[in-house]
Amino acid sequence: MRTLIKNGTIVTAIDEFVGDVLVEGEKIIAVGAQLDATADEIIDAKGKYVLPGGVDQHVHYSFEFKGERVRGFETSNAAVAGGTTTVVEFVNQEQGKGMADTIFEMDKNEVAPQAMADYSYHAVVCDPVDKTFEEIADLPNRGISTVKLFMAYKGMPFHSDDEALYKALKAAKEAGVTVMVHCENADVIDLLQKKLVAEGKTDPYYHAVSRPARVELEATQRVINLAAMVEAPVYIVHVTAKSVMEAIRSAKNEGLPVYGETCVQYLMLEEDDLAKPNFEGAKYVMSPALRTKADQEALWEAFDNGWLNAISTDHCGFDWESQKHMGIDDFTNIPNGAPGVENRLGILWTYGVNTGKISRQRFVDLFATTPAKNMGLDHCKGHIGVGMDADIVLYDPNGSSVISNENSLHGVDYSTFEGYKQEGKVDKVFLRGKLVVDEGEFIGEKGDGKFIPGKPFALCFDDAQAAKELKNV
Amino acid sequence: MRTLIKNGTIVTAIDEFVGDVLVEGEKIIAVGAQLDATADEIIDAKGKYVLPGGVDQHVHYSFEFKGERVRGFETSNAAVAGGTTTVVEFVNQEQGKGMADTIFEMDKNEVAPQAMADYSYHAVVCDPVDKTFEEIADLPNRGISTVKLFMAYKGMPFHSDDEALYKALKAAKEAGVTVMVHCENADVIDLLQKKLVAEGKTDPYYHAVSRPARVELEATQRVINLAAMVEAPVYIVHVTAKSVMEAIRSAKNEGLPVYGETCVQYLMLEEDDLAKPNFEGAKYVMSPALRTKADQEALWEAFDNGWLNAISTDHCGFDWESQKHMGIDDFTNIPNGAPGVENRLGILWTYGVNTGKISRQRFVDLFATTPAKNMGLDHCKGHIGVGMDADIVLYDPNGSSVISNENSLHGVDYSTFEGYKQEGKVDKVFLRGKLVVDEGEFIGEKGDGKFIPGKPFALCFDDAQAAKELKNV
Amino acid sequence: MRTLIKNGTIVTAIDEFVGDVLVEGEKIIAVGAQLDATADEIIDAKGKYVLPGGVDQHVHYSFEFKGERVRGFETSNAAVAGGTTTVVEFVNQEQGKGMADTIFEMDKNEVAPQAMADYSYHAVVCDPVDKTFEEIADLPNRGISTVKLFMAYKGMPFHSDDEALYKALKAAKEAGVTVMVHCENADVIDLLQKKLVAEGKTDPYYHAVSRPARVELEATQRVINLAAMVEAPVYIVHVTAKSVMEAIRSAKNEGLPVYGETCVQYLMLEEDDLAKPNFEGAKYVMSPALRTKADQEALWEAFDNGWLNAISTDHCGFDWESQKHMGIDDFTNIPNGAPGVENRLGILWTYGVNTGKISRQRFVDLFATTPAKNMGLDHCKGHIGVGMDADIVLYDPNGSSVISNENSLHGVDYSTFEGYKQEGKVDKVFLRGKLVVDEGEFIGEKGDGKFIPGKPFALCFDDAQAAKELKNV
Amino acid sequence: MRTLIKNGTIVTAIDEFVGDVLVEGEKIIAVGAQLDATADEIIDAKGKYVLPGGVDQHVHYSFEFKGERVRGFETSNAAVAGGTTTVVEFVNQEQGKGMADTIFEMDKNEVAPQAMADYSYHAVVCDPVDKTFEEIADLPNRGISTVKLFMAYKGMPFHSDDEALYKALKAAKEAGVTVMVHCENADVIDLLQKKLVAEGKTDPYYHAVSRPARVELEATQRVINLAAMVEAPVYIVHVTAKSVMEAIRSAKNEGLPVYGETCVQYLMLEEDDLAKPNFEGAKYVMSPALRTKADQEALWEAFDNGWLNAISTDHCGFDWESQKHMGIDDFTNIPNGAPGVENRLGILWTYGVNTGKISRQRFVDLFATTPAKNMGLDHCKGHIGVGMDADIVLYDPNGSSVISNENSLHGVDYSTFEGYKQEGKVDKVFLRGKLVVDEGEFIGEKGDGKFIPGKPFALCFDDAQAAKELKNV
Repeated sequence: MRTLIKNGTIVTAIDEFVGDVLVEGEKIIAVGAQLDATADEIIDAKGKYVLPGGVDQHVHYSFEFKGERVRGFETSNAAVAGGTTTVVEFVNQEQGKGMADTIFEMDKNEVAPQAMADYSYHAVVCDPVDKTFEEIADLPNRGISTVKLFMAYKGMPFHSDDEALYKALKAAKEAGVTVMVHCENADVIDLLQKKLVAEGKTDPYYHAVSRPARVELEATQRVINLAAMVEAPVYIVHVTAKSVMEAIRSAKNEGLPVYGETCVQYLMLEEDDLAKPNFEGAKYVMSPALRTKADQEALWEAFDNGWLNAISTDHCGFDWESQKHMGIDDFTNIPNGAPGVENRLGILWTYGVNTGKISRQRFVDLFATTPAKNMGLDHCKGHIGVGMDADIVLYDPNGSSVISNENSLHGVDYSTFEGYKQEGKVDKVFLRGKLVVDEGEFIGEKGDGKFIPGKPFALCFDDAQAAKELKNV
Repeated sequence: MRTLIKNGTIVTAIDEFVGDVLVEGEKIIAVGAQLDATADEIIDAKGKYVLPGGVDQHVHYSFEFKGERVRGFETSNAAVAGGTTTVVEFVNQEQGKGMADTIFEMDKNEVAPQAMADYSYHAVVCDPVDKTFEEIADLPNRGISTVKLFMAYKGMPFHSDDEALYKALKAAKEAGVTVMVHCENADVIDLLQKKLVAEGKTDPYYHAVSRPARVELEATQRVINLAAMVEAPVYIVHVTAKSVMEAIRSAKNEGLPVYGETCVQYLMLEEDDLAKPNFEGAKYVMSPALRTKADQEALWEAFDNGWLNAISTDHCGFDWESQKHMGIDDFTNIPNGAPGVENRLGILWTYGVNTGKISRQRFVDLFATTPAKNMGLDHCKGHIGVGMDADIVLYDPNGSSVISNENSLHGVDYSTFEGYKQEGKVDKVFLRGKLVVDEGEFIGEKGDGKFIPGKPFALCFDDAQAAKELKNV
Repeated sequence: MRTLIKNGTIVTAIDEFVGDVLVEGEKIIAVGAQLDATADEIIDAKGKYVLPGGVDQHVHYSFEFKGERVRGFETSNAAVAGGTTTVVEFVNQEQGKGMADTIFEMDKNEVAPQAMADYSYHAVVCDPVDKTFEEIADLPNRGISTVKLFMAYKGMPFHSDDEALYKALKAAKEAGVTVMVHCENADVIDLLQKKLVAEGKTDPYYHAVSRPARVELEATQRVINLAAMVEAPVYIVHVTAKSVMEAIRSAKNEGLPVYGETCVQYLMLEEDDLAKPNFEGAKYVMSPALRTKADQEALWEAFDNGWLNAISTDHCGFDWESQKHMGIDDFTNIPNGAPGVENRLGILWTYGVNTGKISRQRFVDLFATTPAKNMGLDHCKGHIGVGMDADIVLYDPNGSSVISNENSLHGVDYSTFEGYKQEGKVDKVFLRGKLVVDEGEFIGEKGDGKFIPGKPFALCFDDAQAAKELKNV
Repeated sequence: MRTLIKNGTIVTAIDEFVGDVLVEGEKIIAVGAQLDATADEIIDAKGKYVLPGGVDQHVHYSFEFKGERVRGFETSNAAVAGGTTTVVEFVNQEQGKGMADTIFEMDKNEVAPQAMADYSYHAVVCDPVDKTFEEIADLPNRGISTVKLFMAYKGMPFHSDDEALYKALKAAKEAGVTVMVHCENADVIDLLQKKLVAEGKTDPYYHAVSRPARVELEATQRVINLAAMVEAPVYIVHVTAKSVMEAIRSAKNEGLPVYGETCVQYLMLEEDDLAKPNFEGAKYVMSPALRTKADQEALWEAFDNGWLNAISTDHCGFDWESQKHMGIDDFTNIPNGAPGVENRLGILWTYGVNTGKISRQRFVDLFATTPAKNMGLDHCKGHIGVGMDADIVLYDPNGSSVISNENSLHGVDYSTFEGYKQEGKVDKVFLRGKLVVDEGEFIGEKGDGKFIPGKPFALCFDDAQAAKELKNV
């Protein structure tokens, strides 16, 4: 089966041209100005942008918080409808079980049958016994190239202390596995939460008060130092604040392989959103907390020089009515996290590309190309290029709409971007060559998504090492 | 005329794959895994790297120093034989004449008839009258998108003072022209030269003593401040020292659009080379001067984070016997500059890529893709991509040779890389589709090269502006 | 003759205690809790602060600007009445004459007969011939330990270029002479002035527009680099801006002996003062220009960590009516500078000490002790200590008044601090033991002041070197 | 009783002069050039330096490590013989007991009867219950103005986690109490120790390997962030490394009230000392560990700009034979710490003052004046000034000797400075007016030392606040 997408404006992280993309089976096999190829199907992409399917390197389809679980892969059509064809899911290790076993058991039971986007996995260290750290060496053999640790969340099973961090970094360094870290000082947050609740400050807004930017900065500097001791790369997830970005920059200046991402919401939303009345603020309860306009500006400026290299969503589908309300009397009981995977392309296009904050090339880089590299998925994902998976988005730049939860597929009863405008729209999406969105309508099926193994020694390792491992002739 | 280059390992700044490139006339019209296209000629590139032709953004084919003139475009076959298909030439404005007029007069008389590589031009301000600064607004209409000023060289016609710099930056900002600056404090160098000569310290080595890194740092900080005052981008040429690179980095951290390149020689050679006996040191007399091993290391590390974004040669073909010897009794009379355009690919491949200092992707980026962007030439140069000029190098990674001037084409009686090894070799080069190097032999002719107009608002302007100007659908 | 000052609160740069000071002749010979000494005169200082007489290291009693000359030493009673007993005067070298000769000719003719405060001299390089730089080696023998160069003021005789700066730094380093520099980029100011005047922007406010903080930053970084090349200390005068202070700080972090002062006006006044109507703005025309509130705050915070080490006045007594009005139609003709020597103590006490910005210890340090060290005058000035000159101020902290020019002695028709409040008042001042202010009234006479030779290798040289030169047992 | 010390060279932190000091009872009541006072005793100090008695802000006379206890106050004559007349002792809180109660019980039983130097106390948090943090508010009433927490020493009772640190900082801020912190990451050290021991790396040298500078840097950055969150000053004790000093400097640049000291041994000894054969290395086992020559140089340079403000000893008198040998088979069992209080003056004078690294003024500042300020003891200690305690050292600069443990009084069987030379010698010491060392011989008695209450809001609080609290008229 061959599909020829003709006359679109093809955008990559480094160039842009009007031309054709030829897909055979699951792969892109040619790009050209005017390919004279035979094809079973010809798609006219004139006037549309032909973008690589997005890679969201930070999503939660299986996260649990105080007994509440997010919407799962049965809602992964939302990602696809929003132009993201690959998601990378964090899987919390079960106590007493191997990380990969936890992952692939879940994969078999829940993910493979339901996934509508391609996916890969991050292993989250929850059982910090020797066997867990030893397992890291084997993760690449299972297609897992990242482990995640949470410095935040004192008392929760997924919280890690410095000992666990150090052991993970050391093991990961040897294995070519990238350690990703949620950086917040758990002790201080715990203290502030207790103090605020004791003072009767239980509204959602106090969530932000209980985790100021300094707790994130502290933990970031800490893990940078730990990583430096074992000479391991480290990836700081969901950077929210200017100061934290600058800590990453300082580490780079010192020559350390320290990398970071931010998320759409930290570029767009702010602390004050948590103060919305009638418990609306709970919709914005996520960790780290939303910050200020000044932080947003600093984050937008962090992309040009690579201080941050990806924009993800930290998608976390908790329902407001049925789940966020757990914390109606105490913000510490509000499940942390918010949906977003569906809106990444639309928001970044509208508020990033169209406002001139980032070029289309930079957009593609942050949305797909570099996330794929970060995750060791660039052997097949993140780029409109020969040999790549035919994950392709046709984006129609014309027209504009208003984001509304009723038109969303993510299975949650609210959207943090309710009422935001979106310029242009996703017209068609191909997932490994299969048309899964047509005229904006999701037409794929459960099971369309498949597991994509991540390769070790990804971007986070130094260029040269990456190059060696990458794709030798 | 169609040429199909088959089964090579195609390398771009972001990816790499085995496949085919289809050329029609002067353009690349398709890339694919296995293009089934008809072609007049089929080239088997199996086992070879298919690289974009290099863009050397910093060459001198018309420079004069105390009456001595470098080898001209009649030696531009050396560039091509070395895998560089586009050079950007600095043309010193004639007193009383317009910059563009100076350029295109020379173009007509000397360059167009002789060029064997494609070329573009930098206008060098030498006559700092109002008319000159006013002309900057018109340069883009003539296909010139850069002006260059020299802070060094007190008393020479091409020296510029702060007034000229400021005026040029201001005019350039409006016009989308990028100001490139040779940063060295002219007064201090002049003083040190006089003092050294007065003390009888006339050997080539004292050239380095007379222009320490601080004179470069000072001028770099100065022009960064001047540029900041008029909010103009600025491009620092031939960065030699860690401290200077850090000044550029600090400016980036401050949010300023400050960019820089280094040259092959500053990555490879050092101060001590100037101390070679029998006036051999004169071969290494260039400005700024060669530095230390520590500086070399810092420069190699500057690429990963974009602190420097290109590697050029500052090619300057003065003969040792007939020209450098002018300064046999006084280093200040040695013409400044050394050849290098022929060895850029080979040296960087051998000592950069093959030692693991940079990946092949990074190499392509620094050698071709980003220089093309810097110069406003990325509409057709610097990338193996659809719609680009078919400037293609087939690089055979096998075998190794020793660089020797007798095998060089640059028309100069020495090479600064004499005796250095080169791993792999340039096998074939296409210039806009025409085979000009075959089996390592230059087979092109004078006049093959043509002028490529540079577009304004190049990389040096902010991403967003660049994006707007770039290539809209 | 012995005077015993009893029961005052004696304040030094490091301590404070209630006690007595015994003066014999011109010297302090003892301090004690309750000295049982015989004395010719006993002064009751109960409830008053006993402060060292101030050292204003930056005054102009002989400055000329476009033919206009400031009020001279005949008004130096104003300094004394304001608690400053030593001033250090800048003397512009006459063309063709030695710096010291210029100074001591003026000393004989004008200063010695008229001075009512003690004084020392800075030599200002105006004739940048070899002989001038050679003379620097001899200056310490004449009691001159500082030379000053102006980077600003293009076209004026006292402007220095980089060559002069470098030569002066080199000579001064050897001689233990401290180079003081007025840092502003002359070329850029000149350009901006011409442009503004051409556009009809001739009001005093445009003075500030024509010399933005970046011109000061640029020149500061430049001279720091020049000084680093010859390993000379350098003293940056009248720092006005946060960025400039940070440049000094960076230099200190690099280990360079770079020092700086600010002036009272840069802590208190701002750019907007230049916009006062009816040519009132001209009163605030000084160079560098006044800046913003944010800069003021940064400057106040620069003292705790020694980023700046003194507060002077740059006192410059031009009359508004008769002299500033020269520039009524063109701000570039307004003589630069403003009076201030009379108000340094009162303003700093009121707005620094009493607001809690600086402690009394820090005040004494910035007002007297460290300026004396900077100038090589600490062998006798700047401190209430045994063996020191009996330059003593009794400051009565009670009561408050409003500063008004009619009560001023500086001989100028306006005060930049008109209407500012002053808490407390100068009650008595002793100059080398002689009572020259009593109950706030100046009672000294012309000729009371004498020349105090500055010693070389002052604070600006490294501690150890300073220590060696200081006062060996 | 009156003593007149005549004709000495009196040295303070800011000046130096030949003169007399008059002591009445316990106090200095006058200083003068030639005091004509009657006195019971006249001491001729001609040719000697008259220095303030030293304040060692960091000593351990009651520390226990794995059951072993250091030599106690019965050896405090060593301090005095070495010119240190005041020591500040860390007292580990007993579980279940108040900090002040622990202190004053010990004071009554052990310290008051035995002390031969004056002393003050730091309270060490060991029982991190609410009551402990509440007690901080009351400490100033008991004469305690500092609390200390240890981030190092995982599993030991005196280890503190981030929760304790945060609570202590918050309480201390309100009370004007300064928090002092031992900064090392306990988790990482513990891991490294276990790993090294498991690998059979049990020699003393591995002590240094188990606690690299990064563990100190990490903890320093952490506590700076915690302190910033509650806007509390923080004092970093025993800084050993360039990177740690720079972290303090960065905090100062950010405007934070962060301060630090180093110790004599970190200026003089190095990592390699731990490699001495025959278990000699154990003598140098202290925490943090000794570093490199490069670190030593950076620390010496940290004084000029106040990046570090005191030099203490961390005196810790464990016997080598009877106590350090506990760890003969396992370095983790070697009691941490080394003696040093006796040699602070001699070493700093010889290797600091006499080599030109610091001036005599700076020496006095770091040895006595600023430590007294840091500790809230400057109302009576640290300075040769009127009203101060008559703690006076006569130092004879002539002659030189070799440090040898057999001549030491510290009660320990080794000295880390064995064989180091000492230029000059302590001739006489007065403790509050009493002659306790004469001709270098200790002649005081147990009980001569008395408790000196520390005042809150010391130097670590901002200048202005300090000034207000200091000594109002």
